[in-house]
Amino acid sequence: MQLGLIGLGRMGANMAQRLVEGGHTVVGYDPNPDAVRRISRPGAVGVATLSELIKPLEPPRAVWIMVPAGEAVTETIHALLPHLSRGDILIDGGNSYYKDSIQRAKALEPRGIHFLDVGTSGGIWGLSVGYCLMIGGEEESFKRLEPAFKTLAPKEGYLYCGASGAGHFAKMIHNGIEYAMLQAYGEGFELLNASPFEFDLEKIAHLWNQGSVVRSWLLELAEGAFSKDATLEGFKGVVEDSGEGRWTVLEAVERGVPAPAIATALFRRFRSREEEAFSDKFIAALRKEFGGHEPKRK
Amino acid sequence: MQLGLIGLGRMGANMAQRLVEGGHTVVGYDPNPDAVRRISRPGAVGVATLSELIKPLEPPRAVWIMVPAGEAVTETIHALLPHLSRGDILIDGGNSYYKDSIQRAKALEPRGIHFLDVGTSGGIWGLSVGYCLMIGGEEESFKRLEPAFKTLAPKEGYLYCGASGAGHFAKMIHNGIEYAMLQAYGEGFELLNASPFEFDLEKIAHLWNQGSVVRSWLLELAEGAFSKDATLEGFKGVVEDSGEGRWTVLEAVERGVPAPAIATALFRRFRSREEEAFSDKFIAALRKEFGGHEPKRK
Amino acid sequence: MQLGLIGLGRMGANMAQRLVEGGHTVVGYDPNPDAVRRISRPGAVGVATLSELIKPLEPPRAVWIMVPAGEAVTETIHALLPHLSRGDILIDGGNSYYKDSIQRAKALEPRGIHFLDVGTSGGIWGLSVGYCLMIGGEEESFKRLEPAFKTLAPKEGYLYCGASGAGHFAKMIHNGIEYAMLQAYGEGFELLNASPFEFDLEKIAHLWNQGSVVRSWLLELAEGAFSKDATLEGFKGVVEDSGEGRWTVLEAVERGVPAPAIATALFRRFRSREEEAFSDKFIAALRKEFGGHEPKRK
Amino acid sequence: MQLGLIGLGRMGANMAQRLVEGGHTVVGYDPNPDAVRRISRPGAVGVATLSELIKPLEPPRAVWIMVPAGEAVTETIHALLPHLSRGDILIDGGNSYYKDSIQRAKALEPRGIHFLDVGTSGGIWGLSVGYCLMIGGEEESFKRLEPAFKTLAPKEGYLYCGASGAGHFAKMIHNGIEYAMLQAYGEGFELLNASPFEFDLEKIAHLWNQGSVVRSWLLELAEGAFSKDATLEGFKGVVEDSGEGRWTVLEAVERGVPAPAIATALFRRFRSREEEAFSDKFIAALRKEFGGHEPKRK
Repeated sequence: MQLGLIGLGRMGANMAQRLVEGGHTVVGYDPNPDAVRRISRPGAVGVATLSELIKPLEPPRAVWIMVPAGEAVTETIHALLPHLSRGDILIDGGNSYYKDSIQRAKALEPRGIHFLDVGTSGGIWGLSVGYCLMIGGEEESFKRLEPAFKTLAPKEGYLYCGASGAGHFAKMIHNGIEYAMLQAYGEGFELLNASPFEFDLEKIAHLWNQGSVVRSWLLELAEGAFSKDATLEGFKGVVEDSGEGRWTVLEAVERGVPAPAIATALFRRFRSREEEAFSDKFIAALRKEFGGHEPKRK
Repeated sequence: MQLGLIGLGRMGANMAQRLVEGGHTVVGYDPNPDAVRRISRPGAVGVATLSELIKPLEPPRAVWIMVPAGEAVTETIHALLPHLSRGDILIDGGNSYYKDSIQRAKALEPRGIHFLDVGTSGGIWGLSVGYCLMIGGEEESFKRLEPAFKTLAPKEGYLYCGASGAGHFAKMIHNGIEYAMLQAYGEGFELLNASPFEFDLEKIAHLWNQGSVVRSWLLELAEGAFSKDATLEGFKGVVEDSGEGRWTVLEAVERGVPAPAIATALFRRFRSREEEAFSDKFIAALRKEFGGHEPKRK
Repeated sequence: MQLGLIGLGRMGANMAQRLVEGGHTVVGYDPNPDAVRRISRPGAVGVATLSELIKPLEPPRAVWIMVPAGEAVTETIHALLPHLSRGDILIDGGNSYYKDSIQRAKALEPRGIHFLDVGTSGGIWGLSVGYCLMIGGEEESFKRLEPAFKTLAPKEGYLYCGASGAGHFAKMIHNGIEYAMLQAYGEGFELLNASPFEFDLEKIAHLWNQGSVVRSWLLELAEGAFSKDATLEGFKGVVEDSGEGRWTVLEAVERGVPAPAIATALFRRFRSREEEAFSDKFIAALRKEFGGHEPKRK
Repeated sequence: MQLGLIGLGRMGANMAQRLVEGGHTVVGYDPNPDAVRRISRPGAVGVATLSELIKPLEPPRAVWIMVPAGEAVTETIHALLPHLSRGDILIDGGNSYYKDSIQRAKALEPRGIHFLDVGTSGGIWGLSVGYCLMIGGEEESFKRLEPAFKTLAPKEGYLYCGASGAGHFAKMIHNGIEYAMLQAYGEGFELLNASPFEFDLEKIAHLWNQGSVVRSWLLELAEGAFSKDATLEGFKGVVEDSGEGRWTVLEAVERGVPAPAIATALFRRFRSREEEAFSDKFIAALRKEFGGHEPKRK
């Protein structure tokens, strides 16, 4: 099928390639001319403006948006709207907050524009392995796009999850789980590393991937990481977070559902970005007050 | 090679079968006559006493112990000792505490008995998939037993981890990670289940196993669990724990290494076994004291 | 000074009494006629409508709102607005979300109505001890109301905290701390209760209030609670939460500040309200899948 | 009454002073001659050897040990033993592990030496306010020492808690609670500090001590800390821990009692002492592997 694709960064460019290799036609737009140039190949055209993007697409159109969550999505939709007509489908394949997706679908509905929210997992490996796609919105729109989903995902790697927001909700929870899994492995390897034994961490990761209960794709990646830097000495212990881990905790708080391991993982990321914690200074100061414990001073 | 095997429960019996199918000869002992009977087949002999176990084994012998951790291991070694001679190797394949294994190796050394501690992962799937084996002790003893390890484990599924205790240490950490991974998935699925959407949890688990970042063997098992009981309504929310999760937290405390996600997972298991928590009663009582908040009374 | 007071529940009625005893004049309104009747005494008049409330107040008026956070505050302000004039001051003494208070102050500003957000701690003990008041808004409005604050609070028990929202923000954090303190004591007393010793928990609470590092007002209340029910057997282990603990965690997430102990306390309250946790059923189901561990079934 | 006192550090010296001021006679020993010299005053004699300590004490003697937990206590008792006779009482007033105290009482019993374990709270404030004393051992020995306890503690500030170990157990839990309370306040003040408002933290601490729900002695100390260093900029965010927090978590693990807030507080102390966490490096490395997220490199 024919798709418009907005956002040709690492994820967008890889998806374009996979779509084209699957026999689809892609018209790609990005504000960055280099990104536009890189995408061009038989089956894929790069363009420099949104109106050029729309022109070659035959109605009813399908336009896939692959830009950073938040303002960028809102602005993209806003800029696109004058070019769209009834029956067109917009797909947000980024990491948007599911509540935003529900709002966007609702706002587009009176104009007859359909909206699909598609949580996309797989990272830089999606190009070769395929992307895992969690899809929310009207089922009919999902069916119209199914040929593209089939190409982007590995076998059985896409799912219609339910009403608008369901796709990004599922992706949000997926990432929340990912945070806590990474924390789980991180703690385990830190304990191995601090042990009196001299474990070869790459070998342990490889071993555990052979038939053990904790084998996983993340653990396969750990093998790769340790193979390149056995002690991880090249890395700073600073971990960024995007929005999904935060939203998962907000969801837990709003619904009254306990999520202590996911929250722990999120807060540890926050802590990793503090050179020192004010709360720790506070405790050091109070220990001096009550016990005369002389704290480390600057 | 020829092996003595003590403990023919689910794990032991499966291991015996895998060893025999791999061309080894097994003499198996269990206090339970039914277990002894079940093991017998070409290549495997079941016996009713420890002296009968020892008799057919040619020195230097290899005796694999597969009994519950703790007292049972100590008693088994104690009962075996009079029958063993210099150069024999004892293998503890159970979930023993690594500090016990270090002690046992040390205690056996003056008698010339070698001791290997072998952490064994794989559960009931080990029979078909093979067991993931983490091995500690003298490297020479490891090499003598390697033919058996090769048969028990899947390809590259066994590793000499280091000095005595290293095998059970690695298994301990493995299980600590497992606790936190299960908690991670558990929280995620609970949030999906409490959401305003109507997710099909089996389908989500299956979907996430197709190329997503959180794909894993445990998540494959989740598919199986949801396929048998979509709402898990047949299960009580009560989770047992064996020793390894506890030991992992003890290790973290002793070494001064933070392990908040693993501890969280362990404490949630404890909590699952409390019908109600005394701490919650305490807080309810205090809220009444300061705010007049009328608590739920019995 | 003269004050209008809306909301004559437990908190409002007690505050009215304290204000009158301090020489102020109170006109109180509540939709519940019984509450209106109970408040009347020399210095306090109860009325049945908002217009009756406004009539006796001399401009510039001061109207203190003491109703549940959320919708009730919005509706009260909405109903009041037609009766107010430039220079009047509205005081929200309830547990409102600080972001709502910032919005309310901003919305009222063009009409010349001033808004103070006053976090109020002290519970049912405020009547005798005085209320601890955290105050946000314009400093000039704060000064106009200071005579009332002086009466309501114990000596030095009120503070101008800063711009609009600062009062409710401080109260929010105060309650977040309270959640984690209660959890701290709760865990400690549960451990004493589960110990091999036979501690008299009332006596321990009383003892710790004599010169120990953990002495506090909450611990004094614990003495009272244990004196009435030594084993707390009359209480169900179910703990409600109002909004502030949740908002504190939301704030931590939004600001990227770790708050693991407060989040732990909040999630334990959530957990106390689940008869059993779906996450625990999930883990029980998976343990059966990989280890054949027979779970508790219903 | 007459007491021997071993260990004249900050705590020991202050206790000696309080005992003498209460009319008791103290013979004090410390290996440090300066400490011995400082203690001497009417009613207190400092000595340089253990035999000099014993000589002036009339049997049955009472010897109070105030040395660091662990080896120092064991060695002190070992060195004392030849000098003691049946009916003498040893008191361990330090922060010993309650399991050690149970063992020590048991080991001394056949020689007719009584042993009291006395958890002592109050820090450097004990001299003026009195020490909060939690006492375990035989009740008869407790009664013999009661005159000294009465002097050391504030009114009602000592308690016979039960059999040997009960005193140090209560102190252990007391400190576990203290860890979590400090963490609670620390998180709260960090959130205030990171807020968009400009809170004066000393004033907030002072305010909250006036009638609020979270008022406490620790919060009074916080006023003092902020008054000396409003931003705590002179402190490094590094927090030491002694043994009791660790033992509290070990106890929770051994008994199967959840203690998530106390464990959180302990692990945060561990984390404060890591310049960067290996687990964070691990997560940064894996994020690079799956998402190409460029980590901070050294």
